[in-house]
Amino acid sequence: MTFALRPDLPPPSAKWTGLSKHHFVGGNNDAGAVPVAELVAAATRALEREGHTLANYFMHSGPQGHRGLREFLVAKLARDAGIVCTVDELLITSGSLHGLDLVNAAFVAPGDTVIVERSTYGGSITRLQRLGARIVGVDVDADGLSAQGLSDALDALQREGVRPKFIYTIPTVHNPTATVMSAARRAEILALAHRHAVPIFEDDCYADLTWSGTRPPALYALDGGENVVHIGSFSKTVAPALRVGWIVARWPLMGHLLSLKVDGGSGALEQMTLAQWCPRHFDAHAVQLRAVLEAKSRTMFDALQAQFGDTIRIAPPIGGIFQWVEVADGIDTTRLAQAALQAGVAINPGAEWMTDPEQGRRHFRVCFAQPDHDNLREGVARLAEVCHRTFGVPARAPLAHR
Amino acid sequence: MTFALRPDLPPPSAKWTGLSKHHFVGGNNDAGAVPVAELVAAATRALEREGHTLANYFMHSGPQGHRGLREFLVAKLARDAGIVCTVDELLITSGSLHGLDLVNAAFVAPGDTVIVERSTYGGSITRLQRLGARIVGVDVDADGLSAQGLSDALDALQREGVRPKFIYTIPTVHNPTATVMSAARRAEILALAHRHAVPIFEDDCYADLTWSGTRPPALYALDGGENVVHIGSFSKTVAPALRVGWIVARWPLMGHLLSLKVDGGSGALEQMTLAQWCPRHFDAHAVQLRAVLEAKSRTMFDALQAQFGDTIRIAPPIGGIFQWVEVADGIDTTRLAQAALQAGVAINPGAEWMTDPEQGRRHFRVCFAQPDHDNLREGVARLAEVCHRTFGVPARAPLAHR
Repeated sequence: MTFALRPDLPPPSAKWTGLSKHHFVGGNNDAGAVPVAELVAAATRALEREGHTLANYFMHSGPQGHRGLREFLVAKLARDAGIVCTVDELLITSGSLHGLDLVNAAFVAPGDTVIVERSTYGGSITRLQRLGARIVGVDVDADGLSAQGLSDALDALQREGVRPKFIYTIPTVHNPTATVMSAARRAEILALAHRHAVPIFEDDCYADLTWSGTRPPALYALDGGENVVHIGSFSKTVAPALRVGWIVARWPLMGHLLSLKVDGGSGALEQMTLAQWCPRHFDAHAVQLRAVLEAKSRTMFDALQAQFGDTIRIAPPIGGIFQWVEVADGIDTTRLAQAALQAGVAINPGAEWMTDPEQGRRHFRVCFAQPDHDNLREGVARLAEVCHRTFGVPARAPLAHR
Repeated sequence: MTFALRPDLPPPSAKWTGLSKHHFVGGNNDAGAVPVAELVAAATRALEREGHTLANYFMHSGPQGHRGLREFLVAKLARDAGIVCTVDELLITSGSLHGLDLVNAAFVAPGDTVIVERSTYGGSITRLQRLGARIVGVDVDADGLSAQGLSDALDALQREGVRPKFIYTIPTVHNPTATVMSAARRAEILALAHRHAVPIFEDDCYADLTWSGTRPPALYALDGGENVVHIGSFSKTVAPALRVGWIVARWPLMGHLLSLKVDGGSGALEQMTLAQWCPRHFDAHAVQLRAVLEAKSRTMFDALQAQFGDTIRIAPPIGGIFQWVEVADGIDTTRLAQAALQAGVAINPGAEWMTDPEQGRRHFRVCFAQPDHDNLREGVARLAEVCHRTFGVPARAPLAHR
């Protein structure tokens, strides 16, 4: 029998066929950096202490998530991001994607308008599209979301009589450009948002990964949470497969987010293990991980420079796990990504990472965190080869000389 | 600033204030039955073997979930439920609530009609209501969903020109009545569904908890999955807080469900731990747990009989974690639940567990799995006391004589 599914579903997924040989897509991380032995010890101790609480949907912590983990986050966010919040203002989610879904669900109805960075996380674009939102993109420069661009967009919408539901931004290690919004820019953005009575949705999931180990105060911190909802994640700093993130929001917004979280709680074993592991190990682990990622970032950057030369324009990331690449005229990154995939190199075409897919065809994104250094170098060489074959650039030396 | 939230949100949640002294709501389980030591060993071994795969969103298993866990489930479902499926037809979800959400999202658009058991899981009712579905309830008798009732409902809808999107049923240890649909009834229901070209959505999350340890073949098994989508869960058999469930569906339906699962995977630590624990321990654990639950069920049943007498009508459950209670005329269980909560006894009022809330006011549901035997007895006595104070029944002996 043929099922009568909703007529407006996204295209069905195909069966999974494994990772590409050079897997530069998604946000996977360095396998060697997973603190396995420490996690064994933490899981053991957590289970021995509170394993019996697994019999309860919310352990003994209520629907906002493991209390010990929230206590760690309250202290960590205060120290690192300047955020002042209580455990009641923290909601543990199943990764920050779940945070995206909850905040979007609270704000966005079909036809609503949202402002985002013109290049932004592809999953945020597709989520907002699925909700029927009108998406307005604003430029990003070296200091982050453009204040002039935001001001212009807000003014234009005001002339239309449209009040956007929120300004979604990834200010600290922006995905995909890896820029960090300056403190001055943060103040400008907050002032604009306040003047137009538009809240800010701050996605801070890469914020622990600046090479320097420091970051400006979160937008939530600068504003006291009055006009900002904030999400974060352990995916980039501990392990993506753990699926543990969080939302910081004040009441009554938190009450609305909670009423939409009808999942019976987020995974408890992960929460109790992290609650055990984090206080003792998070900081030292983050220092090590940043060093691993910075080294891989340099390898990726150097390989791209060496292989592509002036066929591309790139800036060295100052944190994170991604390199954003602008390509020369004549290269279509959607076609490049398709051809590269056939050759075993998976990249994220820019059309999926920009609000204007045509602009996106001039960019692509590569994640350097998972592959090892040799794999990065070989994959970039292979990508350049595919690009040369498909578009005639970059120039390639004869094989024997390479 | 006041956030401009969606106007159609459910009421916001209040801050959590802890469990009631006699906590008979929800689906929590016996804390002593959580196999803590075995889970420590399993988590340790799983992390040591494959902890490094946590660096990848989907471990090395792809978006359908941990391959070893799916392999266990393929074998288990074949043996226990008669289901023939492959690992490609299994999707690990974050609890069966997540399965509900994915299947609902694939089928139900606002205005669509669905058929459910007249008394059913409250979370399913609220989910379908949130999606804007029209919900048609069909009676449940001692053999499960009434075939005559289903036939009448399908005929009536056909006369209206309405084809329901699915028939949602909990056939094996029905929530809340704890009935198990007979094999003969299953055949009748499948034939009716087939004749009307309406798929069946089978929620099997309590199916491992019949006191006998046996169960009829799943509807999915009897139909070969042609017209059935099936969900299940480890919540009731291992621990609700783990949040691990599954969907069984054939392709191309599975491809549509996968395309809606944009969560970056379900919790990996739980999946790899269960994949390690299940093959060796699941069966013995289920035997022990069923004995614990059957004993508590008897305590709850006896206490209700003793305290309420002919003020209520109950049948002894033959599995599961719930007792469904019908009350005499003159008792409104919505008011009873409110008064009882003040006295430290939390029960689920039937209005939340039936498609017709007015009918629901004649019923309530109690979960007997979490409290110990003394707590069950005391809580039922207190509930009877509250009922007597509020509605004049049941008759109470003077305190000194009790």
